[in-house]
Amino acid sequence: MDEIKEGIKYLFQTQNPATMCISGSGHAGMEAAMCNLLEDGDVVLMGVTGLWGNRAGDIAQRYGADVHYVRARCGYALSFEDIREAFQTYNPKVFFIAQGDSSTGVLQSFISDIGDLCRRFNCLLVVDIVASLGSAEFLMDEWKVDVAYTGSQKVLCGPAGITPISFNQRALNKIKARQSKVKSYYFDITLLGQFWGCFGTSRIYHHTVSSTLLYGLREAIAIVCQQGLKNMIRRHIECSYRLQKGIENMGMEMFVPEPNHRMSSINVIKIPNGVDWRKVSQYAMNKYFLEIAGGLGPTVDQVFRIGLLGENATEEKVDLVLTILREAIQNTSGITLNERSKI
Amino acid sequence: MDEIKEGIKYLFQTQNPATMCISGSGHAGMEAAMCNLLEDGDVVLMGVTGLWGNRAGDIAQRYGADVHYVRARCGYALSFEDIREAFQTYNPKVFFIAQGDSSTGVLQSFISDIGDLCRRFNCLLVVDIVASLGSAEFLMDEWKVDVAYTGSQKVLCGPAGITPISFNQRALNKIKARQSKVKSYYFDITLLGQFWGCFGTSRIYHHTVSSTLLYGLREAIAIVCQQGLKNMIRRHIECSYRLQKGIENMGMEMFVPEPNHRMSSINVIKIPNGVDWRKVSQYAMNKYFLEIAGGLGPTVDQVFRIGLLGENATEEKVDLVLTILREAIQNTSGITLNERSKI
Repeated sequence: MDEIKEGIKYLFQTQNPATMCISGSGHAGMEAAMCNLLEDGDVVLMGVTGLWGNRAGDIAQRYGADVHYVRARCGYALSFEDIREAFQTYNPKVFFIAQGDSSTGVLQSFISDIGDLCRRFNCLLVVDIVASLGSAEFLMDEWKVDVAYTGSQKVLCGPAGITPISFNQRALNKIKARQSKVKSYYFDITLLGQFWGCFGTSRIYHHTVSSTLLYGLREAIAIVCQQGLKNMIRRHIECSYRLQKGIENMGMEMFVPEPNHRMSSINVIKIPNGVDWRKVSQYAMNKYFLEIAGGLGPTVDQVFRIGLLGENATEEKVDLVLTILREAIQNTSGITLNERSKI
Repeated sequence: MDEIKEGIKYLFQTQNPATMCISGSGHAGMEAAMCNLLEDGDVVLMGVTGLWGNRAGDIAQRYGADVHYVRARCGYALSFEDIREAFQTYNPKVFFIAQGDSSTGVLQSFISDIGDLCRRFNCLLVVDIVASLGSAEFLMDEWKVDVAYTGSQKVLCGPAGITPISFNQRALNKIKARQSKVKSYYFDITLLGQFWGCFGTSRIYHHTVSSTLLYGLREAIAIVCQQGLKNMIRRHIECSYRLQKGIENMGMEMFVPEPNHRMSSINVIKIPNGVDWRKVSQYAMNKYFLEIAGGLGPTVDQVFRIGLLGENATEEKVDLVLTILREAIQNTSGITLNERSKI
């Protein structure tokens, strides 16, 4: 467990002692962030660039918070101006944003500026890095992010079911100052942090952690450490560029118009006219055991989503998925794609 | 997932369609039971035979319930009379009891009578079978239990981190009639049941379940099915009798005076005068890699706890642990145990 904590600190680029894992999926990480920080009536602002800001809003509302939203146009990142105005309108105690929204493929940039804004408004910044960590730069401490959590089974390629999370001192101070107990026992970070030995006190028994998942996650983190975080991020970005170039060469279009706002791990592609994505997806799965996903949330029936995460972020895999995507589209729709798409 | 559901129905002896798993530890199962059934101000009564009734009370209180307790003397089961009186005093909407409390080793009997009592008081019955399922008879439907959950890593010997749980129609009716949303998204049984395909509707995406844990649990359940549940229970009871006899032959005493109220999976033994349990436990671990646990909650520093769960419930293992316990006590305390303890 201590080795895992050190590994997460490296991945998140943080020195936070309160760095640990939630024994649950990424959704559990989101819920842990919300339910520890929020009390009844607390004003929280959700940055929405796809599905995840809405989900965080649903969770915060369940826990009694006063939830507001600032929404980007679908396929676009939020502008700093939009966020600043929403801060002035709502004066939130907590602001949530997903660095990468896996439903739209939008990568939210200038998180560092949002960190500064949060400090000026005495607001806590929660960043969901479930699908982005390891495929885009993320500097928790330097960017003044107060809470962050990631997925074990995304870029890290570990087993699902265990979720790295980190709270800085500002976040812990808000938790210490709570008037009411955290409503969830299972996600109570003050107890969980004692279980994980984060606070320098002797460990307590909080719940039975899955040793199966711990060993899997430890190994996944070790593999990233061997590669080096910067190399891993560069590899993901290069592979995504290669995929995007191949897609555009076929005459198709990325869903996110602004190249700098595209995630490298989840690549979202507009479905060309006349193409039935379900047939394409089934063709690829049946013939090649290759998963080309459809849309999620706001992008259902509008896009293909191609994951290049961890082991799948290699030139060979990119070329393979492009070849299969071309074959699947041509065989299921009869459409002939651009000649220059040959790769 | 469908096979796992069928397996759980067999293990719980239930036909409930709302039978599924929580993606978390046994504590998460307890929290899911509480937070789905309870709304702010609901009166809940906790039967306490050790640690777990208090823990359930802490969780219910966090979720806003009006929590009351009926407590057994430490090492004893609750009497039906005590429970009935508490029902008359508090008129609870939900009653909680652990079939087996792993901190004291107490097995609560006459759950069927408690089921009848709950129906008379229009109260829901939640039974924690985390540490008892597979080592004692449990008939969810026949005994009129409304919600039950068990541990994957106890008698089932599966991986920790995934928790079988079942809700009957009465429990679902209370959930449907809620005035407020369940505070937890992650534990919301209405969403989770759709994810698990329990309600005859098409499956929704609720969270990413750990396939690693699903396959492990499926295999653990398959092994129980091969043995047969009755055979498994009989084996646990026989092994516990053998252990108890060996303990008494050494001149030691079981913590639970009434033999019919002893769990067979967790065997709790009073520490004899002059014996340092930590030294005994360390001796067994260092020399034999055998775990003899100390107390938990109300029994800390008072007892040894010996788990005979699943693969460890065999005559050979019982004889081994008796031999090692004798050796460990004699070597760490100098006390000579009764001659007749030779086995």
